[in-house]
This record gives sequence, structure tokens and C-alpha cells, in this order.
Amino acid sequence: MIPEVAVSKEEQAYALLKADADKILQLIKVQIDNLTMPQCPLYEEVLDTQMFGLSREIDFAVRLNLVREEDGKKLLDNLERELNKLHEASQKR
Amino acid sequence: MIPEVAVSKEEQAYALLKADADKILQLIKVQIDNLTMPQCPLYEEVLDTQMFGLSREIDFAVRLNLVREEDGKKLLDNLERELNKLHEASQKR
Repeated sequence: MIPEVAVSKEEQAYALLKADADKILQLIKVQIDNLTMPQCPLYEEVLDTQMFGLSREIDFAVRLNLVREEDGKKLLDNLERELNKLHEASQKR
Repeated sequence: MIPEVAVSKEEQAYALLKADADKILQLIKVQIDNLTMPQCPLYEEVLDTQMFGLSREIDFAVRLNLVREEDGKKLLDNLERELNKLHEASQKR
């Protein structure tokens, strides 16, 4: 009915989720650069926890109809791909 | 500007969070009733994970201005109080 308002809240929701995904990527980059031990269990645990937190946020936004399920899934898949790339690059050093 | 729309989204957000909190409480009730081992590390881990997930959802809703920070905090505090009650009751058996 009021597309401007609706779109704005949806855009905000997506932007927040995107920013949170970028934060996780950044966190992992810093860990890899400084610790260079991606096989460390603590690293895995931090990553799992962060990914779980983000997936809950995305799920919540989808249930509120602020973000399309497809877009939420893509956001998570992209992050996973980026993380895998980082991981692989760190192991080739 | 359009209070009906705005309030409705906020109400939806709060109702979703409340339902998620109730789900955690229910999960823990079932665990206590059936396993009767709240000192089990797995129980603690499940609870921690669920509480973390809910806190991320609440934080997200607050950042989106869908839920007041105060209300989000209360929701989490109430859940923790209820869980403590359950925990204490299970230990007195």
C-alpha cells in the first residue's frame, strides 16, 4: 500500500544483514592474518557461532516478510563461499 | 506516518520474538521432564546456543527500530528468570 515505507524497512533489514555478514568475513580475515591457524578449534567455534547468529537474524527477517527467503539464502551462501576462498588461500601460503 | 502499518510490523516482530522465547522455555521443560539432567553439558550447550540465537534476533529487531531496546531486554530477562525457576524446581525433586 505504501511502497516507500515498506521498501525502506526492507532495505534497512537487508542492509543490516549484509553488514553483519561483512563483519563475520572481516573477523575471519583478521583471524587468518594474525593467527594463521584456521584449523584451530576455537576458530571453527567462533565461525560456527557467528554463522548461526546471522542465520537466526536472516530467518527472523524472512519470517517478518522483510527479506525474501531466496535473498536471505543467497546472502548466507555468498558469505560461505567467501569464507571458503579465504580458508583455501590461507592454506596455500 | 501510517501508524497501522508501522505498529503492525512492530507487533509482528515482538510476537515472533515472544514465540521464540516460549519455544526455548518449552524445549527446556521437555528436556528437564524427560532427561532430568540439567547439569548435563549438552543441556547447557543447547540452552546457550538457543539464548544466543534469540539475543541476536532481538538485537536485530532493536536495530531495525521494530522493538524498543527496553522491551527486548525485558523479554530476555523474563526468559532467564523462567529458566532459573525451572532449573531450581528440577533440582528440588
